[in-house]
Amino acid sequence: MELWFTEKHTPHVNFSIKVDKQLYSGQSEFQRIDVFESREFGRILALDGYLMLTEKDEFIYHEMITHVPMAVIPDAKKILIIGGGDGGTAREILRYKSVESIDLVDIDEEVAEVCKKYIPQTADSLNDPRVNCYFEDGLKYIRHHENEYDLIIVDSTDPFGPGEGLFTKEFYGNCFKALKETGIMVNQHESPFYPADAYAMQRAHKRIFDSFPISRIYQAHIPTYPSGHWLFGFASKIHHPILGANWKKWKALNIKTRYYNPKLHVGSFALPNYVEEIVREVE
Amino acid sequence: MELWFTEKHTPHVNFSIKVDKQLYSGQSEFQRIDVFESREFGRILALDGYLMLTEKDEFIYHEMITHVPMAVIPDAKKILIIGGGDGGTAREILRYKSVESIDLVDIDEEVAEVCKKYIPQTADSLNDPRVNCYFEDGLKYIRHHENEYDLIIVDSTDPFGPGEGLFTKEFYGNCFKALKETGIMVNQHESPFYPADAYAMQRAHKRIFDSFPISRIYQAHIPTYPSGHWLFGFASKIHHPILGANWKKWKALNIKTRYYNPKLHVGSFALPNYVEEIVREVE
Repeated sequence: MELWFTEKHTPHVNFSIKVDKQLYSGQSEFQRIDVFESREFGRILALDGYLMLTEKDEFIYHEMITHVPMAVIPDAKKILIIGGGDGGTAREILRYKSVESIDLVDIDEEVAEVCKKYIPQTADSLNDPRVNCYFEDGLKYIRHHENEYDLIIVDSTDPFGPGEGLFTKEFYGNCFKALKETGIMVNQHESPFYPADAYAMQRAHKRIFDSFPISRIYQAHIPTYPSGHWLFGFASKIHHPILGANWKKWKALNIKTRYYNPKLHVGSFALPNYVEEIVREVE
Repeated sequence: MELWFTEKHTPHVNFSIKVDKQLYSGQSEFQRIDVFESREFGRILALDGYLMLTEKDEFIYHEMITHVPMAVIPDAKKILIIGGGDGGTAREILRYKSVESIDLVDIDEEVAEVCKKYIPQTADSLNDPRVNCYFEDGLKYIRHHENEYDLIIVDSTDPFGPGEGLFTKEFYGNCFKALKETGIMVNQHESPFYPADAYAMQRAHKRIFDSFPISRIYQAHIPTYPSGHWLFGFASKIHHPILGANWKKWKALNIKTRYYNPKLHVGSFALPNYVEEIVREVE
């Protein structure tokens, strides 16, 4: 017998992983949650059939969504993670001793519970006393916070289904308001390659660009995401993502990473022309 | 009816593209050659079942294997392409007016003939009077050339089957000899992500590193190649791949690219830590 997990990257492109078995399958109030065991990627989390993380390559996504902003504000104290119920983003942020508290707001408590049981590699972080989990709608949560956070990380699912509201203008505007004067917002920003993804990415960029004085895009190689070419958004009130980096302080923290490093930080903002063109169209 | 082209990226990972039809299928003396028409990627060339290029994303591979070295030696005159029978690499090199001749050595004339008929987007270049095609074994060809080329581009298939010899120490040593004093060799260098690919990449790097005084690796996002994270090798006698770039001259050439640009050139040499570690192990 062979068991394969298949994700449609587009209606014409399938990405399939041979799995040993399905460890969990359930329907929460918000989405279907599946966990698979695989030889190539270790454990795999899928939400509504979309691959969210694998044990083998989650380090790339989680390092890139956290260390890029933290190199700019390495003494950040108060962090907000919207989404991120798998705990991977919190795990990376907890490596900074300056961090006093992480508020993690995920709409779906069951994702966190399933990950705690099946993917401790990321979800163990949720048990850390510095992490406060709020299981509610991030779109609503953010409305009631002002001048509070050093860093907001929008670690959302795709811009349809439960994650849809986290790509709206209202949401980004409220993130701006919830950030301190020196605050940074980073978000997962979809992929530029397949046309439908590129359109979603362009629309998100326009909304962030309209909400923040500084708004730039950076990229990483994430093999299990559609096209493997994944983008992140860096938005801030005053900090430039490259010139603003505090390398002396960041290096002194001696944080061991497997993907991220300062040279790659700079290089990740050098986008291909075709991506620059998609982005510039709406600036 | 649905027709799908599937490539096994590993025994546990399938990448599948829905195709409208098979335009060509034949067995040459060296390999099986297939051309498909697809809605997502346009025409697709596969050799022995491995995807070699698609009309949609071949620009990434071909720009990155050519403009990176040409930015360092933008007035190169005599170029050798080993492999590259689809013509995409020759097409990019022909955009430099300084280039007087391109010797293209591919073992399989049928690949070039099939591409001329079905993929003119890349193969039209082979009809250019500056391109001299030699259909023979690149491993043998290179033995009889000395101090002749400004640039050698090893645009090979994978390190098994017909392309195997193009990853040997003897071959790289002969490339060194065939280059002028200021010469550069660039090669397609496989992917770092899946263990078997990473091993092949490491082995190739060791052999190039042992043959050339300067040997560095750079990367690109190529969505239709395994993992989407693809590497290239830059080896030279005297030129540093970044400090040696002649941006003033390159920009004056006004070559319009869709992926490559000078910032990305620099950024592409900033490798993730896990890739640096694979590479450093053999240096």
